Amino acid sequence: MADVKEKPKMNTNGKRRAQMLAPDSLVMEFGEDEPLKLDCGGSLASYSLAYQTYGELNADKSNAVLVCHALTGDQHVANTHPVTGKAGWWETMVGPGKPIDTRRFFVICVNHVGGCMGSTGPTSVNPETGRAYGLDFPVITVPDMVRAEAHLLDRLGIEQLFCVVGGSMGGMQVLEWAASYGDRVFSAIPIATAARHSSQNIAFHEVGRQAVMADPDWRAGRYLDEGTQPSKGLAVARMAAHITYLSDDALHRKFGRNLQDRDHISFGFDADFQVESYLRHQGFTFVDRFDANSYLYMTRAMDYFDLAADRGGDLAKAFEGTQTRFCCVSFTSDWLFPTEETRTVVQALNAVAANVSFVEIETDKGHDAFLLDEPELFDAVSGFLSAAARTRGLDMADADL
Amino acid sequence: MADVKEKPKMNTNGKRRAQMLAPDSLVMEFGEDEPLKLDCGGSLASYSLAYQTYGELNADKSNAVLVCHALTGDQHVANTHPVTGKAGWWETMVGPGKPIDTRRFFVICVNHVGGCMGSTGPTSVNPETGRAYGLDFPVITVPDMVRAEAHLLDRLGIEQLFCVVGGSMGGMQVLEWAASYGDRVFSAIPIATAARHSSQNIAFHEVGRQAVMADPDWRAGRYLDEGTQPSKGLAVARMAAHITYLSDDALHRKFGRNLQDRDHISFGFDADFQVESYLRHQGFTFVDRFDANSYLYMTRAMDYFDLAADRGGDLAKAFEGTQTRFCCVSFTSDWLFPTEETRTVVQALNAVAANVSFVEIETDKGHDAFLLDEPELFDAVSGFLSAAARTRGLDMADADL
Repeated sequence: MADVKEKPKMNTNGKRRAQMLAPDSLVMEFGEDEPLKLDCGGSLASYSLAYQTYGELNADKSNAVLVCHALTGDQHVANTHPVTGKAGWWETMVGPGKPIDTRRFFVICVNHVGGCMGSTGPTSVNPETGRAYGLDFPVITVPDMVRAEAHLLDRLGIEQLFCVVGGSMGGMQVLEWAASYGDRVFSAIPIATAARHSSQNIAFHEVGRQAVMADPDWRAGRYLDEGTQPSKGLAVARMAAHITYLSDDALHRKFGRNLQDRDHISFGFDADFQVESYLRHQGFTFVDRFDANSYLYMTRAMDYFDLAADRGGDLAKAFEGTQTRFCCVSFTSDWLFPTEETRTVVQALNAVAANVSFVEIETDKGHDAFLLDEPELFDAVSGFLSAAARTRGLDMADADL
Repeated sequence: MADVKEKPKMNTNGKRRAQMLAPDSLVMEFGEDEPLKLDCGGSLASYSLAYQTYGELNADKSNAVLVCHALTGDQHVANTHPVTGKAGWWETMVGPGKPIDTRRFFVICVNHVGGCMGSTGPTSVNPETGRAYGLDFPVITVPDMVRAEAHLLDRLGIEQLFCVVGGSMGGMQVLEWAASYGDRVFSAIPIATAARHSSQNIAFHEVGRQAVMADPDWRAGRYLDEGTQPSKGLAVARMAAHITYLSDDALHRKFGRNLQDRDHISFGFDADFQVESYLRHQGFTFVDRFDANSYLYMTRAMDYFDLAADRGGDLAKAFEGTQTRFCCVSFTSDWLFPTEETRTVVQALNAVAANVSFVEIETDKGHDAFLLDEPELFDAVSGFLSAAARTRGLDMADADL
């Protein structure tokens, strides 16, 4: 699908672009007879969704768990990543015997529309021009992503999800699922997220976008056509964002003012401090696995998310009459999506007498805690899922597998 | 002093460069017989300090108040800025009848070595090459800046400062003054600062430096020779930094998710949100008044600041036997220099039985509060200065002027 004019060199960047052409994933194609209607008013005439599944769908298709990935995540939740060769991004959470137990549940994760790991996005070929979309790709919203996922589930014959779960932007999708497709969501676990993106968070995203766009190799979004890569700008964007994923305490604990491979400061602009070296590494490795335009689109989708706005500003209206069971999770040191944001969601759910539990987990790991080894998170998710499974009447005979 | 090959165009950028050549300030020149010894081991063979004064020095030279400016500040504390045409950066604090009352005190503010408003810095001509220093300028530390200021006071015949005061990086200098020249500091007011730069703060600075250095117009620091300006990179750096100067609450109060000059989101990458527009403005205007290399040097000076490190890690040793009176100020919503950092300083001062008062001011304005209209800050400073002046025996007959 991607417009790769040269035979891709199979360095990491080439591997990523190859994943757009022929992803190591299942792919569902939607033709021109099934366009994806978009919030911007337009539509995608045809599109593909790359997705991964784990476990087996049961006979009555009642054990499906949809995992929604975060801003720069993808569908490779619990398998070796085809580009980086690293473990899946949520292997601590998803797998046999894990909190989202693939011996019991059929887990699906979809690369979001606008992404860069096989689903249609700005690096895909625009059928109208025969070139990569670039900025001609329509701006995608969180509801658009969810609408696309709903079409995929239609194809798979899954009427109702047993659970939809995700953190950060994935958590926004969880909330959108519950709000727009309540009947199709038996239970929902929004983690470290919010019902709308805050002013400060929009500001950080804008810095990242400006960093990308300031890179002359971005070429007004046409870098694929021109054989360039805005790697420096994207690396700066990632560095700025990465700080927001951690906490001051976590950085202090991990790095403090420790020096990197030296005993004394160098009185120069090298990476004297470990935290500088770490941050540079985060920036430079990111550009190998992610596309700059996709980064623009994904950040914009988060900025635009505001679940209450389309409902007269009343968040509770988003959940009126909901039968979904909710488990809302936040982390004490998350300053990107502070507990206050989750509390706002919980209050809206309480206002409509929803079935909701709320777990605030004490940790110094910041926003990233949802991706890390957090036993309290695992306990909360597995406990909630077990209880919900009993209510749903899912066969629990194998609970002790 | 600056290597301006073309006759500067008198747009704002030209005005800034003209201030390096012939600042609208007093200038003190130090010749080769008085080199500035630097922490890096080298020295500046000759250098200039541009400075402003307000009020009059009394007969026994006992009423001098040194104001230390922050990262991107300069000596124009309380007069119209010669480049921007805006009010001085601390006119709310310094002036006749203001908390630092220029009817009573002789106020001095020095553009730091490494700066770009008339003092010797990376845009100055390197006498060894005849070209602008660029990255050949030695890395400057906060103690280096203070050492230079001490030389200036020697020239002015001021043996002891009545007070040294500053916020942020200026506050670091206040602490350094008190630690290294305790006998010359009768009283000290460090505001919104720390005895060392935190890991998270180093990380944010590194993002800014990488943004500057990623700009191809930076030309490895030789942009003055090549007639370019890394404006885009510097603007991105400023945008990222600017977020850290505010608080989440302040951004929410000022902008929330309000749209800029439109009723609906545009489904694009324009500045839909007011906070985006504001941030872009902050970035673009900054590049007109500040030099990119100076930005690298100033951020590095803050990163390197660690008052305890040279004293075996014991901060209290920095203040042993001090006779200076301290008034330490922090702001509740300052997440760049949280109250905890000031508390660490206060504890070290208490450990040596110093005369110290500590004021934590409740505000949602974040780090920038020290520059803004904060009546509680004004009260704290004027109250502390009045009491210190009485102790010092400064003539208070004109207290009701």
